[in-house]
Amino acid sequence: MFEEEYDVIVVGGGHAGAEAAAAAANLGSKTLLVTMNLQNIGQMSCNPAMGGIAKGQIVREIDALGGYSGIVSDKSAIQFKMLNKSKGPAMWSPRTQNDRMRFAEEWRLMLERTENVDFYQEMVSGLLIENNKVVGVKTSLGINIKSKSVVLTNGTFLNGLIHIGEKQFGGGRAGERAATGITEQLVELGFESGRMKTGTPPRVDGRSLDYSKMIVQPGDVIPEKFSYTKTKPLTHQRDCYMTHTSAMVHDLLREGFDRSPMFNGRIKSLGPRYCPSIEDKINRFADKDSHQMFIEPEGWETVEVYVNGFSTSLPEDVQFKALRSVVGFENVKFFRPGYAIEYDYFPPTQLKHTLETKLVENLYFAGQINGTTGYEEAASQGLMAGINAHLKLQEKDALILKRDEAYIGVLIDDLITKGTEEPYRMFTSRAEYRTLLRQDNADLRLTPLSHSIGLATDTRMKRMEEKLEQSEALVNFFRETSVLPKDINPIFESVDSSLVKQSDKMYKAFSRPNVTMDHMLQLEDVSNFVKENNFDSEILEQAEVQIKYSGYIAKEKVNADKLHRLEAVKIPVNFDYSKLKSLSFEAREKMTKIQPVTISQASRISGVTPSDISVLLVYLGR
Amino acid sequence: MFEEEYDVIVVGGGHAGAEAAAAAANLGSKTLLVTMNLQNIGQMSCNPAMGGIAKGQIVREIDALGGYSGIVSDKSAIQFKMLNKSKGPAMWSPRTQNDRMRFAEEWRLMLERTENVDFYQEMVSGLLIENNKVVGVKTSLGINIKSKSVVLTNGTFLNGLIHIGEKQFGGGRAGERAATGITEQLVELGFESGRMKTGTPPRVDGRSLDYSKMIVQPGDVIPEKFSYTKTKPLTHQRDCYMTHTSAMVHDLLREGFDRSPMFNGRIKSLGPRYCPSIEDKINRFADKDSHQMFIEPEGWETVEVYVNGFSTSLPEDVQFKALRSVVGFENVKFFRPGYAIEYDYFPPTQLKHTLETKLVENLYFAGQINGTTGYEEAASQGLMAGINAHLKLQEKDALILKRDEAYIGVLIDDLITKGTEEPYRMFTSRAEYRTLLRQDNADLRLTPLSHSIGLATDTRMKRMEEKLEQSEALVNFFRETSVLPKDINPIFESVDSSLVKQSDKMYKAFSRPNVTMDHMLQLEDVSNFVKENNFDSEILEQAEVQIKYSGYIAKEKVNADKLHRLEAVKIPVNFDYSKLKSLSFEAREKMTKIQPVTISQASRISGVTPSDISVLLVYLGR
Repeated sequence: MFEEEYDVIVVGGGHAGAEAAAAAANLGSKTLLVTMNLQNIGQMSCNPAMGGIAKGQIVREIDALGGYSGIVSDKSAIQFKMLNKSKGPAMWSPRTQNDRMRFAEEWRLMLERTENVDFYQEMVSGLLIENNKVVGVKTSLGINIKSKSVVLTNGTFLNGLIHIGEKQFGGGRAGERAATGITEQLVELGFESGRMKTGTPPRVDGRSLDYSKMIVQPGDVIPEKFSYTKTKPLTHQRDCYMTHTSAMVHDLLREGFDRSPMFNGRIKSLGPRYCPSIEDKINRFADKDSHQMFIEPEGWETVEVYVNGFSTSLPEDVQFKALRSVVGFENVKFFRPGYAIEYDYFPPTQLKHTLETKLVENLYFAGQINGTTGYEEAASQGLMAGINAHLKLQEKDALILKRDEAYIGVLIDDLITKGTEEPYRMFTSRAEYRTLLRQDNADLRLTPLSHSIGLATDTRMKRMEEKLEQSEALVNFFRETSVLPKDINPIFESVDSSLVKQSDKMYKAFSRPNVTMDHMLQLEDVSNFVKENNFDSEILEQAEVQIKYSGYIAKEKVNADKLHRLEAVKIPVNFDYSKLKSLSFEAREKMTKIQPVTISQASRISGVTPSDISVLLVYLGR
Repeated sequence: MFEEEYDVIVVGGGHAGAEAAAAAANLGSKTLLVTMNLQNIGQMSCNPAMGGIAKGQIVREIDALGGYSGIVSDKSAIQFKMLNKSKGPAMWSPRTQNDRMRFAEEWRLMLERTENVDFYQEMVSGLLIENNKVVGVKTSLGINIKSKSVVLTNGTFLNGLIHIGEKQFGGGRAGERAATGITEQLVELGFESGRMKTGTPPRVDGRSLDYSKMIVQPGDVIPEKFSYTKTKPLTHQRDCYMTHTSAMVHDLLREGFDRSPMFNGRIKSLGPRYCPSIEDKINRFADKDSHQMFIEPEGWETVEVYVNGFSTSLPEDVQFKALRSVVGFENVKFFRPGYAIEYDYFPPTQLKHTLETKLVENLYFAGQINGTTGYEEAASQGLMAGINAHLKLQEKDALILKRDEAYIGVLIDDLITKGTEEPYRMFTSRAEYRTLLRQDNADLRLTPLSHSIGLATDTRMKRMEEKLEQSEALVNFFRETSVLPKDINPIFESVDSSLVKQSDKMYKAFSRPNVTMDHMLQLEDVSNFVKENNFDSEILEQAEVQIKYSGYIAKEKVNADKLHRLEAVKIPVNFDYSKLKSLSFEAREKMTKIQPVTISQASRISGVTPSDISVLLVYLGR
């Protein structure tokens, strides 16, 4: 039925699978996307939102690399917010609320418009493997589909088990069946597998809520967007709302704890620590008698509403009774109850930096199968797996993002070096160089890399270069242009900064605390220069960040360079750590398992000490 | 979890369930729609089209009654055709191609905007029954939801079993699971159940087809629409294409016949005779070495394509190989193979004219559960079940459409009187009075009835009344206005009709064969009258039909009146046919089973002869 051999088969059509298929195909690989239901491509299984802290940066990085998540999010957005705008630019994090149906439709149509992507609807039940190399997949109908590589992005579907109270039943998502066969085969091949858990809150009927009792959460007055391409920012937006639980709500929930699969031992696997269920929050923070809840519309027109902050697998009657006690939810009607789901994952220390498995050549894993949580984490892994699957087939160098280049680099390095025992979520605190990894410069950081391998288009590259030129021109203008005391002192006065008696370069004035671009634009020379050159807000922002934070940025660059020197010290493949008796037992064991590729990677393995690193460096002649 | 008691619970969100929920709710019943997946409301499980011969008339009837199918179809249409336009107006049949995703989205949003409709996502696994009365449903989570009545619209989900070649697996639709529990409970309650089969063709990638080798099938130049409301006609359309099978294609398909579940005995149940699989067609019409295929786009933008005429459950490799031999399909790529599905139905002789079951009070069945096939057949049953569930709760007279009032009347009367052993599809030939049951007058026939029970809105009623007044005014104008020989003879000459020497009424001239409204509009008096009164094309069409076909219409009305006299002769409830020894054995047995309500209904039972009817009439004192 499938006569030709594909270059890449992607199994699964969620955030990871969709990005993987798009990337491999756009690079020129003949790609097949196989999924159990083609109508469910690009589903947002949990909340109808993209981005947020650290995650928004990832979406920008995906976009800068030529992935689709940013464009799809922009096209289906119903609200935009730049989070943390009051903090430094490293913390600025874009986030959209999205129309769930539009999001999925945009994904499907974008993939359909992508040359080299074919589609096939069926459950993949196993892999075709010859000599420890993957050579295709087999489906539940018994069809063999040949390919040179396979990317598995099974999400929560592998032996998915849904829990609501005392009930449990097989399923990959509410209303959809689980996938079987793959885990069993991989374990037989020697893979280590585990179980993880995640959960989702009830969906409710917005018509049954009293929003007048809640706090409105509008989008930004001037909404921005994710993509560096010419997607359109929103012209109107939908509001979210905020409410909160209470001691009474907690009491009502506690009444169901003995029937909770979380507490009665039925669910043994770990859930996402930073996206806990409401019963988890009550349990862990027993002294708090209120938790915030965010009420998010599921789209432009639908009345369905997502109850963010109320993820739960308590029995449905307990969910209902407790939710009815929340302010504004007195008459709530359920569309469906919340639930928890357990699924198989594969500890990601079994992967290389390319996301290829160490055990089976040309087999890649991306998304929740690697123990991560979050759409953005999944999408970015899919993108990198798709890219590297293609590059390897072309016998080209892998594209591995470094920790000072991208959150995506941090994510993948963390996964394969440290592994994860609970669903891994990205945070700004996971990045050592977060001042470098800003949402405003993802294009500057990554588009040239992606362009060099042929993924980011010439148009993207040209837009990035223009942005770079223009912002540098503006920074240089500030560096070279002087300002008179009579012009700058009123600004200094307005921000309680000491006055000056002599002319000085604008750059120096701008560098002072509390002096912003808006202040500088009050200077006629500046506003004229900006107008003459037709600089837009993106250029102003970029120049401001470069000037105001140049100190921090320079410092992090120095640190990053140090790291790169260790990165350059390669450890031979299949290095025999047992012969280095001075290594600690733990270091020897863990490095044998993880097989770090460089000294730098070895240093990040938990349990490997600086003295272990010294031993290694001495042995390697450094 | 569900504190209040609903008036009506509708199980299933397909065409039948969606119409049932809308109708009951619009009449004022508190209604709950329960479905396994709320994202799949209003799915077109098979071809992306609505209407067609006899079916288009049904959609117009649903619309005239205040149902939603016509509006949803208009809003999601990508092509419109009035079929049979070259035949008499009784045969004119509107049909749309639809955007599958838009269709579902419009349905969901229309239901969401309907007051009194609540939604809940879960599988219903059984009914709550007390004293032979339904009092609610129970779900797979064990939730009891109370209601005064229940409408079951389970489609192909009840113990659904999907077949592809030698493979078979449980499922309600490709990629969705089957529903269990309901059949078993109903059988225990004394219901008779059976199995039916239906099938669907492969979906393929439109990018892999060579349309230049096929015959383009465009929409009408001036597209009309289904709804009598102010939906907008299409301003642009998508084309379909026609191709055909060949002797070689048939040979390739025959190679798989020994692996076909249709021919090796694995599928025992009957499929729709008039929508046969390709293997059925080859088998039944062995002398034909070509069958038509229609290639239908699945939406405005998607590349997915529906291969109408190639429904099959042959092994997927056979499907593929054969399809590749079809002209234009030489390089076809599959999105998914065709398949057959077997499912439970309940012979509809177990129902009353209201679609309420005879065995369990306030329990209604609508759609494929009654052994029908087709979106339109399902939707109309759902509408009538929803209406009658509401009316019964209000202790109002049932709304039962007569055979001379609506195709829907024919459909339901056929089902409950004759039953069906194979999937029942509507045809114009099933209607004795099809000259009365035209697509152009469904509003005149049905809107007053629906308005009288409070379903059709005042706006609808007013539009219908205006149409009636205006078309009558135009007919009267023709009746009262004379035309001179010098004016009418050129028209007669142009249609080879004999010339006249004296003035006569326009009506008489218009009645002649081949004289059309377009001819009459060439007369200045007529065109002035039409312009002065601002009559639109609908009025012109209506007047033309009334005048040109008045003879047929009058004759059918006389026949219908005869039927109504028999209809008026009621047979007592639980009539004991065994005491009428002169009845034939077959008549006695069938009437005992079906329990006809009137002599007219008794006369339509197959096996009941005119002499049996005489016996009954004599006994009943007529």
